[in-house]
Amino acid sequence: MEFLKAVTAREALDIINAFPASLHTEIASIDESLGRIIAEDIIAHENIPPFSRSLVDGYAIKVKDAQGAKETNPALLFYKGEIRIGEETNATLEDGSCIYISTGAMMPEGADGVVMQEYTRRMGDAVEIIKTTHRGENIIFTGEDIKQDSIVLKQGKRLTPFDIGVLAALGMADVWSYKKLKIALISTGDEIITVDKKPAPGQIRDINRYTLANILRKTCSDVTFVGITRDNPEDIREHLNAARESNMILVSGGSSKGERDYITTCVEELGGTILFHGVNIKPGKPTIFASLWGKPVFGLPGHPVSCIMALTRFVLPLVRRFHGETRLQEKRTKGVLATNIPSSYGIEEYVRVEIGYDDTECKVTPLFSKSSVISSLSQATGYVIIPEGKEGFEKGEEVVVYYFD
Amino acid sequence: MEFLKAVTAREALDIINAFPASLHTEIASIDESLGRIIAEDIIAHENIPPFSRSLVDGYAIKVKDAQGAKETNPALLFYKGEIRIGEETNATLEDGSCIYISTGAMMPEGADGVVMQEYTRRMGDAVEIIKTTHRGENIIFTGEDIKQDSIVLKQGKRLTPFDIGVLAALGMADVWSYKKLKIALISTGDEIITVDKKPAPGQIRDINRYTLANILRKTCSDVTFVGITRDNPEDIREHLNAARESNMILVSGGSSKGERDYITTCVEELGGTILFHGVNIKPGKPTIFASLWGKPVFGLPGHPVSCIMALTRFVLPLVRRFHGETRLQEKRTKGVLATNIPSSYGIEEYVRVEIGYDDTECKVTPLFSKSSVISSLSQATGYVIIPEGKEGFEKGEEVVVYYFD
Repeated sequence: MEFLKAVTAREALDIINAFPASLHTEIASIDESLGRIIAEDIIAHENIPPFSRSLVDGYAIKVKDAQGAKETNPALLFYKGEIRIGEETNATLEDGSCIYISTGAMMPEGADGVVMQEYTRRMGDAVEIIKTTHRGENIIFTGEDIKQDSIVLKQGKRLTPFDIGVLAALGMADVWSYKKLKIALISTGDEIITVDKKPAPGQIRDINRYTLANILRKTCSDVTFVGITRDNPEDIREHLNAARESNMILVSGGSSKGERDYITTCVEELGGTILFHGVNIKPGKPTIFASLWGKPVFGLPGHPVSCIMALTRFVLPLVRRFHGETRLQEKRTKGVLATNIPSSYGIEEYVRVEIGYDDTECKVTPLFSKSSVISSLSQATGYVIIPEGKEGFEKGEEVVVYYFD
Repeated sequence: MEFLKAVTAREALDIINAFPASLHTEIASIDESLGRIIAEDIIAHENIPPFSRSLVDGYAIKVKDAQGAKETNPALLFYKGEIRIGEETNATLEDGSCIYISTGAMMPEGADGVVMQEYTRRMGDAVEIIKTTHRGENIIFTGEDIKQDSIVLKQGKRLTPFDIGVLAALGMADVWSYKKLKIALISTGDEIITVDKKPAPGQIRDINRYTLANILRKTCSDVTFVGITRDNPEDIREHLNAARESNMILVSGGSSKGERDYITTCVEELGGTILFHGVNIKPGKPTIFASLWGKPVFGLPGHPVSCIMALTRFVLPLVRRFHGETRLQEKRTKGVLATNIPSSYGIEEYVRVEIGYDDTECKVTPLFSKSSVISSLSQATGYVIIPEGKEGFEKGEEVVVYYFD
């Protein structure tokens, strides 16, 4: 009974984390870099902005010239022209004078503040300032956004739209990133048919192929579907061989003991090693992890929910490690349980939940259903983890919810 | 001074929400449907699973035959063969007998429970059951996941990997979804240069093009970059005309009063109507919303942070409405402020924040910086909204954080 040898979730992760995982790097254009992980620290080779700019439409002044200025006691300055946006200026501001400046335009030498136009009155060659100004007000200084020679993005960061904006600001049209992980998917099971077929009695359609591929697509992996293999060693070996060029192999299905035995036997016959077989989690217990041709192979449970939870807890961390993603921030929230969640001591359990917000709190409603129920996942916003050492949570308790995605 | 006419954030949203927004629908293959919004209720035309299945390897029995069974007092049943996975069975279980069944295999007529193999002992033609079983235990019944004729996914839902799994389960290889919104992006400004150019004094590179396009790409929109227009009416009109075939036009930049006036004038000259010009928010105040050729046109501020906040608060809701997305769940969390956030009464203010988790709480650290600082966005996990009627939040207060993305 192989479940007697089941490892804990922690042990499983330790084994997975010890697996060698690295990818080559490649140049990616910033047009195609969303979600890619950068393989180098990005060092600013220039200041951003490259010159001090006005943040408003108004008058560049020396702050000391308008100290204490107000409506009833305006400061009077000489008008010395205008600086337009996009223009270089060599103007130097003299004491007691001011220059009109547009939002985004280059500050003149000698000015240390900008008064918004609405606090000024132009009268021919003179300008009345009716509000006092502080040093640096309405200016963004050279390098205030990004300092030359500073590290702006660290190696291992997954590029967000904002990061790509930073690269654009620095004029980096492309960036070194880790290659996309090539993942091969295999579905197994004599009962599994493709989505376009009408199931005969005893048959069901392949679900995991779609859920796995779409979740993995979000990680910027390169996912290939090898096919559906029947429950016999020749067919399984053939499919594994067809996946040989990938970096990682995911075999989903094989929920019965016989099927799982076929997978482990085939991996071993092809020269691989089983690293664990069975984890004390629920759902997801019959998860297998192996090394074959130096590549990681996961045997994921066939039940759709078990399959997804095993993916989330064990496969995704390894995908991230392959991609060099070191700066992960999981999206989570906290909320109050609407009902009790029972659980067994000694098993790490995952419960799908729905979240409802009101003004004062976040209500967390567990979706109890069997591990083969795909519709419950579709309804879930996230999941709650019940640690091994805990016998569930009680209604009203505050729990952490991990968002799916 | 156009800011005197500024609307509140609520008024701006009311105006945007009144704008007619609809798209045609099209068939999308489930291979390409991640993130698309479904244009029909998905009704199950069959039960999932289509037959009652065993969830474990074990023996299908009549529960009453093993009532009270235990290690010291096992129930003895006749072994009547095996049902394999993927096979149709016409077997009917008789009283006092049992059939071996694999995980996922079809339940025989007459059985109402499955005993896991580890609680049984096979001895030739007899099987000892050493644990009592409940009705329905280890079985998923016909239609228990999805009931025939039920609505499984509602119109307006953005398809997640799990939803695509539901479609696959039902054999729906494609689905009616709303067309992708065609969005045209225009950058404006005499100081703006493309990312591959070295800025001369007074010039800066186009950032918003990249941040906008990548955020909008995540909404499954079809984004086209029209180009950078200079600050003159002819060039602006030409770029607007070039965007005529799109469903929505976003003009970013034009932060100075003169530039904003050009945009509003050009829209009006081309027959459009300005619906609002300036919103009492910070950052993002100089946002413009107009109707041109029946299409929505946004004038977004040039400063990168202002631009993103205006996009997040005003453009994205309209994009979602075009796409028919009615069932939105924003990702958010709650946390405790690490410092005070000051704010002005009468302005809705957005403050970028970083989140740090420890075991007991989520710490929210505001990132204070000027609205033109793109690097602060890159660092931020999300943002906090300070309502119009509030003068900031205090250190230690619990606040809601909206995740970017």
